Amino acid sequence: MVTIDMVWDAQAALKGVARKTPLENAPKLGENLYIKAENLQLTGSFKLRGAYNKIKSLTPDEASKGVIACSAGNHAQGIALSATKQGIHSVICMPAGAPISKVEATKGYGAEVVLVPGVYDDAAAEAARLAKEKGYTFAHPFNDPYVIAGQGTIGLEILEQLPDVEQVVCPIGGGGLISGVAFAIKSLRPNCRVIGVQAAAVGSMYESVKAGKITTVPDHDTIADGIHVLTPGDLTFAMCQKYVDEVVTVTEDEIAAAILALMETQKTVAEGAGATSVAACMFGKVDISKKKTVCVVSGGNMDVSMISRIITKGLVKSGRIAEIATNVVDKPGSLINLLQIVSKTGANIVNINHSREDERAEVGTCTVSMVLETRDKEHVKQIKNALRGKGYTLV
Amino acid sequence: MVTIDMVWDAQAALKGVARKTPLENAPKLGENLYIKAENLQLTGSFKLRGAYNKIKSLTPDEASKGVIACSAGNHAQGIALSATKQGIHSVICMPAGAPISKVEATKGYGAEVVLVPGVYDDAAAEAARLAKEKGYTFAHPFNDPYVIAGQGTIGLEILEQLPDVEQVVCPIGGGGLISGVAFAIKSLRPNCRVIGVQAAAVGSMYESVKAGKITTVPDHDTIADGIHVLTPGDLTFAMCQKYVDEVVTVTEDEIAAAILALMETQKTVAEGAGATSVAACMFGKVDISKKKTVCVVSGGNMDVSMISRIITKGLVKSGRIAEIATNVVDKPGSLINLLQIVSKTGANIVNINHSREDERAEVGTCTVSMVLETRDKEHVKQIKNALRGKGYTLV
Repeated sequence: MVTIDMVWDAQAALKGVARKTPLENAPKLGENLYIKAENLQLTGSFKLRGAYNKIKSLTPDEASKGVIACSAGNHAQGIALSATKQGIHSVICMPAGAPISKVEATKGYGAEVVLVPGVYDDAAAEAARLAKEKGYTFAHPFNDPYVIAGQGTIGLEILEQLPDVEQVVCPIGGGGLISGVAFAIKSLRPNCRVIGVQAAAVGSMYESVKAGKITTVPDHDTIADGIHVLTPGDLTFAMCQKYVDEVVTVTEDEIAAAILALMETQKTVAEGAGATSVAACMFGKVDISKKKTVCVVSGGNMDVSMISRIITKGLVKSGRIAEIATNVVDKPGSLINLLQIVSKTGANIVNINHSREDERAEVGTCTVSMVLETRDKEHVKQIKNALRGKGYTLV
Repeated sequence: MVTIDMVWDAQAALKGVARKTPLENAPKLGENLYIKAENLQLTGSFKLRGAYNKIKSLTPDEASKGVIACSAGNHAQGIALSATKQGIHSVICMPAGAPISKVEATKGYGAEVVLVPGVYDDAAAEAARLAKEKGYTFAHPFNDPYVIAGQGTIGLEILEQLPDVEQVVCPIGGGGLISGVAFAIKSLRPNCRVIGVQAAAVGSMYESVKAGKITTVPDHDTIADGIHVLTPGDLTFAMCQKYVDEVVTVTEDEIAAAILALMETQKTVAEGAGATSVAACMFGKVDISKKKTVCVVSGGNMDVSMISRIITKGLVKSGRIAEIATNVVDKPGSLINLLQIVSKTGANIVNINHSREDERAEVGTCTVSMVLETRDKEHVKQIKNALRGKGYTLV
């Protein structure tokens, strides 16, 4: 059971440990839109709050034995830093294939990392085994009242930073974050709406709430790996049923577009999970036309190579990268003639492939496919029209 | 002439107009390092401060006629928003090839945009002509006491936000930002060092200070387009000589690495110019071992396609993308055998090119060049060794 006093206590415990993250207006994303920037939290995600509060709740005997968790993500770093700050030994089990950057970051916060051969479930089993063998306390990432109370401090901060908030939008994975936030908000401001967002690819809380019972969903990839949870917890499910007004879902493309928009307009880096709340507002899943709305951007730990892939995807979708192919006569000078037309339109070449063997090529011609940097979809049309105007057929 | 009273007046004028941007510790970039985040300023750069203060200084007669500026960048947006907020007409001349996004952003802030055929100099000439013809006041981007006083408010904020600051590092283009910041800092805290940073590709203030006279440098491309100025102003040059302790330069690679580091550790998007201060600290151009140092990150207006290119460059440099080529026998199954070795090392394929015509191919073999996502330089070595161990020669 979570009580509002537990949330107040968590806030006191977190003083000087977790940052009170900024709450900023984001007028370019929506007139009434505000961002609660937990991507700027220490360790790069909100997880620190719940993790620290959980470890703070240990008895002296438990604390002396240490804690263990299973995670290759934000929970790992939250537990590691929290334990170290309280002088407690922490062990993190990760699947052996975890990215080196995550392993190093977790070690950097002072944890002992155990790499377990296999997948996440193998690491979880090993964590359970070690907990039993060594007497470690197992720190669950979301289904724990102290963890939930810790995340609830975000709700307190929102009410303090924007007292006339009317709506809070929050990512959901296992449900720890939204359970805490919704509980705090509804306890103190019952008329403020709380809306949860999941990646459509892994909508376990969405399906559970709809079905009225805890439901496991099939596994799919999602760029929102921080909320990649196939089954909600019983505690978090019950709290979502009670305190959350609505759960909506967003597609992978919508998440990618939100990540891009946050970079371009807010100059801030959100991870996929963190951007789902903004995606829901950008793409009409949540009505922000009349309500002062806070989006919790829950984390910012995204590999830069992933950022690069998302930018590319976003550029293609918005017409700023386009692929155009046509056939040219297979003799010297043909490609130059084609490129001169393209160059005059102001498009910049990213990649070019010139091939006789392409099945679109006819005898005596080659297929040229060009990846171009363009200004927008209108520009792409202009380039295509310029090529057609000179007799090229687009293939 | 700039006086400290002018800077205080600018601070009063900017109240409720410019954001007091956050000053944050950046321990992962350096124990004593702090970021003054002017990339989070309205319009995405510090330019708003000086522009607003300049326009505030106009006489009623000048104000009724309007202002004109020449810029396709941050100055344009600063002037446009500042004029609109003060109910004054603004005209911005831009070279006709300016990115549509910049044109739209400037119009969005309420300016009349005049697209001038040709390059920057043509746009500047047209702005001068229009100023004369229509009686507009020309708003210089840096060589103006009111502009400098406006930028100086950043210095006041730094002293307020980090009273025991010992060193301030600041990008230099034309010198308006650093003149204001250095003047404010040295007026109030003479013992605090102020260091300027330029892109080595366009080191006009660096060369001018070294030569003891205003010097024009040859034009080169730089990703720090916000500080791409070939000749300092006379006012800013004199102020740099008097108030700046040292000017250093950073390379394009160092700037790219700093942009990447700011995204990864601070979750913040800086443009090239804005990241030069951090680059100088990361790469030993400024000694931050003993001094509490503030880096002014001057702006965050970078096209996402540029971000993507910079990430790619940074990934290659840090061994997280690698290109490896080898020859395989030209018969079915050869490529599969090769890919199985690569796959076992955990590398992910980005691009692959399989070619008989490659000059590295011998008769009966094809050259396969692979672009791979790798963990680090050590991982690249492992992959190469695995291939050599199976008899492949790297070409």
